[in-house]
Amino acid sequence: MDCGEPVYQVRLKPGMSVGDLVEELGRAGAYNAGALYRAVNIYEHMLRDQKATRFFGLAGAMVPAGMGGIITDLIEKGYIDVLVSTGANCVHDIIEALGCHRYHGTSSCSDIELRRLSINRIYDVFLPDESFTRFEEFIQGTLHDLSSDSVFTIAGLLSALGKKLPSGILATAEKKNIPVFSPAFQDSMLGLQYWLFTQTHHAVLDAAGDMKDLLDRCFNADHAGAFFVGGGVPKNFILQSMLLTPKGFDYAIQLTGDRPDLGGLSGATLDEARSWGKLAEDAVSVTVYGDATITLPLLVAATLERLSHD
Amino acid sequence: MDCGEPVYQVRLKPGMSVGDLVEELGRAGAYNAGALYRAVNIYEHMLRDQKATRFFGLAGAMVPAGMGGIITDLIEKGYIDVLVSTGANCVHDIIEALGCHRYHGTSSCSDIELRRLSINRIYDVFLPDESFTRFEEFIQGTLHDLSSDSVFTIAGLLSALGKKLPSGILATAEKKNIPVFSPAFQDSMLGLQYWLFTQTHHAVLDAAGDMKDLLDRCFNADHAGAFFVGGGVPKNFILQSMLLTPKGFDYAIQLTGDRPDLGGLSGATLDEARSWGKLAEDAVSVTVYGDATITLPLLVAATLERLSHD
Amino acid sequence: MDCGEPVYQVRLKPGMSVGDLVEELGRAGAYNAGALYRAVNIYEHMLRDQKATRFFGLAGAMVPAGMGGIITDLIEKGYIDVLVSTGANCVHDIIEALGCHRYHGTSSCSDIELRRLSINRIYDVFLPDESFTRFEEFIQGTLHDLSSDSVFTIAGLLSALGKKLPSGILATAEKKNIPVFSPAFQDSMLGLQYWLFTQTHHAVLDAAGDMKDLLDRCFNADHAGAFFVGGGVPKNFILQSMLLTPKGFDYAIQLTGDRPDLGGLSGATLDEARSWGKLAEDAVSVTVYGDATITLPLLVAATLERLSHD
Amino acid sequence: MDCGEPVYQVRLKPGMSVGDLVEELGRAGAYNAGALYRAVNIYEHMLRDQKATRFFGLAGAMVPAGMGGIITDLIEKGYIDVLVSTGANCVHDIIEALGCHRYHGTSSCSDIELRRLSINRIYDVFLPDESFTRFEEFIQGTLHDLSSDSVFTIAGLLSALGKKLPSGILATAEKKNIPVFSPAFQDSMLGLQYWLFTQTHHAVLDAAGDMKDLLDRCFNADHAGAFFVGGGVPKNFILQSMLLTPKGFDYAIQLTGDRPDLGGLSGATLDEARSWGKLAEDAVSVTVYGDATITLPLLVAATLERLSHD
Repeated sequence: MDCGEPVYQVRLKPGMSVGDLVEELGRAGAYNAGALYRAVNIYEHMLRDQKATRFFGLAGAMVPAGMGGIITDLIEKGYIDVLVSTGANCVHDIIEALGCHRYHGTSSCSDIELRRLSINRIYDVFLPDESFTRFEEFIQGTLHDLSSDSVFTIAGLLSALGKKLPSGILATAEKKNIPVFSPAFQDSMLGLQYWLFTQTHHAVLDAAGDMKDLLDRCFNADHAGAFFVGGGVPKNFILQSMLLTPKGFDYAIQLTGDRPDLGGLSGATLDEARSWGKLAEDAVSVTVYGDATITLPLLVAATLERLSHD
Repeated sequence: MDCGEPVYQVRLKPGMSVGDLVEELGRAGAYNAGALYRAVNIYEHMLRDQKATRFFGLAGAMVPAGMGGIITDLIEKGYIDVLVSTGANCVHDIIEALGCHRYHGTSSCSDIELRRLSINRIYDVFLPDESFTRFEEFIQGTLHDLSSDSVFTIAGLLSALGKKLPSGILATAEKKNIPVFSPAFQDSMLGLQYWLFTQTHHAVLDAAGDMKDLLDRCFNADHAGAFFVGGGVPKNFILQSMLLTPKGFDYAIQLTGDRPDLGGLSGATLDEARSWGKLAEDAVSVTVYGDATITLPLLVAATLERLSHD
Repeated sequence: MDCGEPVYQVRLKPGMSVGDLVEELGRAGAYNAGALYRAVNIYEHMLRDQKATRFFGLAGAMVPAGMGGIITDLIEKGYIDVLVSTGANCVHDIIEALGCHRYHGTSSCSDIELRRLSINRIYDVFLPDESFTRFEEFIQGTLHDLSSDSVFTIAGLLSALGKKLPSGILATAEKKNIPVFSPAFQDSMLGLQYWLFTQTHHAVLDAAGDMKDLLDRCFNADHAGAFFVGGGVPKNFILQSMLLTPKGFDYAIQLTGDRPDLGGLSGATLDEARSWGKLAEDAVSVTVYGDATITLPLLVAATLERLSHD
Repeated sequence: MDCGEPVYQVRLKPGMSVGDLVEELGRAGAYNAGALYRAVNIYEHMLRDQKATRFFGLAGAMVPAGMGGIITDLIEKGYIDVLVSTGANCVHDIIEALGCHRYHGTSSCSDIELRRLSINRIYDVFLPDESFTRFEEFIQGTLHDLSSDSVFTIAGLLSALGKKLPSGILATAEKKNIPVFSPAFQDSMLGLQYWLFTQTHHAVLDAAGDMKDLLDRCFNADHAGAFFVGGGVPKNFILQSMLLTPKGFDYAIQLTGDRPDLGGLSGATLDEARSWGKLAEDAVSVTVYGDATITLPLLVAATLERLSHD
């Protein structure tokens, strides 16, 4: 067996760039630091590949944790061609775009006391109830304006919402004409608001109405790359869409805090996806285990630095 | 501060019942063993409460791991009033009911070789491609029979499928008139099959069409209990449905392999759900961390043993 | 590739024995449930093998969680030939044997308040300071009685302590003439007490003085089996001791809550140990991931049930 | 309840410094990214505090993963006053200093094949057997030179080894007169080599012989700070040493991949340590969960950048 490069001991310099740090992690090359370095290599390759369609799956409470800005900027730069998100990340993107805030809180507190103060908690992030009042007004208003339609698709609704927002993921995706899919749309405050709307308006949300668009993008991709933050519905929806094509993904990166031995898709290795044909046999892929609030900014900043060297 | 009961050292007897084992874990009372014991207490209470509506959220690849039999039996015994499942668990339930099998495999293998052998892998479970052929025939046939309808709901489709199956979760739920919700239906082989069907038939799957039924059950519940295997869409969908009512869940049990510090809902504590009002202030709740293929059978067997003492 | 047995859906019966439950888990055969079943197979084989020397590594705060009774009983039954423990588990075994208790507490509390109440916390277990007063008297008294010696070994000290105790791991090991090794002895309250003793007495604790005994047991084992609860020093010390022999372990079982991708020994797979020659090439081994307060009682109760069928 | 700062959405710039990235993570402020930012704040404070004695606990297979260079440089800069390490990290530091290498390998391989090739595996790091041959010669040679002594301490032995090495942790600690403690010394290749030496030489390794030195440093610390990479023996040994003093640690940072609910010390929160009095009531402390091969370089690089601004 051929032993590869030696493990070098990491050397840090004050003021070093994120890219330089990741180079050091690559010279060390072990465990998740090594995986992160390989993820930067793959992401650089994926973003430089002009023939690649880049799918991005966004799961986990990432926008409430401030990671939405990274997604927005990737869309703005043209580095995301198709976004699949949980409903909750769309909800929080809208709340942010409406000028409401989540706040630095703590996970060591009385949730009963928070309840009495009308503050909702997401681990150590606090979200006041009033955000949802603004959210409700915005959603109901937008739906009302749309109400001459009677059959909606989820991607269509998200696009309509993006049109009305000044900034953020949905607004930027709309501006750049990037579709946003969210197959579990009902499973979010957006879904609840939509349901409220249907109590007074006749409308149908066609659950499968936007699948053709996604599948067409899979069929039409010369090369296909997938970037998964978390697992959940976005990961599976992206992977399964490729199943109907004769191809598989050529590039795949996964940032997850889950673990493989529990059998769930969120922690499953990308190798497993090869057995299904979701990844091509010769795909380059890597999983970085850890909290994506750390690994995502590291990975993206280092990749952008490389691309800026052109 | 009042110190509680002493931690007793566990004593095991050959041939002891599962219930006796859990009593020993309760006398020890620490870490996840103590949590499991408290979960049995809560579950016994929830199942004995004649006024309680019991919601069950099923996430993770549980049916492929053989946990579907437990869910089927809980439905059969009248211990589940509302089931919310991932699409994938419904898919595997159907495959099982059609007489196809998954097989004991290994996680240490070549996924490329598996691909060439038409075997799909879920961690250490192997699933031959031929299962999906049978699955496709069944789904397309059923949809064809239904095709005089033009607007479906997800719960309605799952009910129609359950009617045609001889056994399993969907069949038993249908027999017992228990609704099965699956908000991320599209995100599964069921969703892909449905989409294929719509290529040749005019049909609309109304994503929010069954939400009223679920919300009514939340409103009408005198007491409400929630049992979550894994997190994901089923957990959130059940919890958010209670948000529209003035109440919260009175009982809640969560079996999860995730962890809270990553901020995702799947690993979030049930205390966090109190800040949102999803759980009542005085709700009894517990999270047991670990692989549900171990904790679920333990918990259910011990609870059934207690109930059998009547 | 040969697909193995089908995954059967688990069926639970009220009052079923722990052994019957584990048989059901084995028929399901997936994820950690399947691993637990295989662990019972291996442990049964290891305990039936008359030529096997059984090493047991005990790490993690297991005695404070009530798991010490299981270890005591395994020693009593002759199922442990060599015990390697963290110092802390020995400390808590002594405290228990002295009649002091830990108590059922909670992990959601003010540690500052606990401090003011002289209560020490181990996750959700509370331990009053007064236990340590009794512990100190006992240790200092015992050391004083031994003080004609001037060079101690760790195993020798633990044996001397076991002689004076009425029950528990150390007492039973002493009664059954089973050596207890604890290489990180200083790293515990025992170590602090020993150090206090040396402030007024001349004594030397020979860190390597008992290694010959352990290594001899490795050399003399016709067959060798290892059971690891947690990782840490006990796991490594047992595995490394086999390195000096031409053989490796023939059986190995590991219960751990850690994960492999972080590179630490505690989460490392037992396959990795084969590359070092710590396990024999043809060893049977399995890792069950999860909280050992659940997996240890399950595994041992099921194995004892099988052995009782003779 | 006072909501804190808003969660800002992270913005990344190509070429940004590691310190700038961590500022962005702090503005987001959530989950482990927020914790990492707070860790940098605490570490900066600890390193600027001229009255602080800084203890550093090093567990996990960190030197084999290339993290040893960071520790070496921290010692060189005067930022570590007391080091407590696992034996294994000392072993790998020596191997590195002797010019031997570990190599970039893979975790997906045949360990039996590796065994036949005399390659040892640590997750995805490969270590050829020949390194241990060089190691053995060096250790035996050094011990032989020392053999006029008859009673050694562990810190004394590590110091003697450091004197003979050209570079690395032990060499730099020796040069800077920083003590290195390793209470589980026997539980490592160093321990095995020491034992081999005692087969032909009369020597005693006094397990508690260096505790006075460590305890004196605890007593004499005006302020005390602790930095823990991983848990294990180093974490406990540092924390327990403070128990004999009337004080507790004033600063504490922990990077761990473990989790609290399993009860083990490695995953225990630093709050728990307050109940024992190991941390002062008003100590500032933080735990960052994740792989230390990522979090350690990030944290240290960002802290050095801040210190360089003076």
